[in-house]
Amino acid sequence: MKARVHVSLKPGVLDPQGKTVADTLSRLGFDEVGEVRVGKVIELELEDGLDASAAQARVTEMCEKLLANTVIEKYEIELA
Amino acid sequence: MKARVHVSLKPGVLDPQGKTVADTLSRLGFDEVGEVRVGKVIELELEDGLDASAAQARVTEMCEKLLANTVIEKYEIELA
Repeated sequence: MKARVHVSLKPGVLDPQGKTVADTLSRLGFDEVGEVRVGKVIELELEDGLDASAAQARVTEMCEKLLANTVIEKYEIELA
Repeated sequence: MKARVHVSLKPGVLDPQGKTVADTLSRLGFDEVGEVRVGKVIELELEDGLDASAAQARVTEMCEKLLANTVIEKYEIELA
């Protein structure tokens, strides 16, 4: 089983990396670009034999403990 | 219109950040985790009035010029 975790900054949190990308794209002539936000995707290979609800619970725990800084970041979990 | 670009390391390219996450998860007691890979998601706000094929072409150009290092990274574009 695979889990994919999307970690992104909460709305309203400044994203200096995204701002830099936006400025650089504009300098390169990509004038159609407005706001840019940069996030992370973490792909986890999970042991077989976990059922979906157990996997969801464990990955949530991983997010809370390590993968996301929940003060400023939100996460979404996708199981496949 | 919004574009979402997923940038991830090509298969076979070492991912030290993913390895560190995997080791740390295992140290925290998450023994069900195998390989971990870490990638980026870049969300771009695009000017309205672009049609989908033009947007696809422009975002591809952005990826090739700035957003991805195509020697070691691959990218996927999603328009919404």
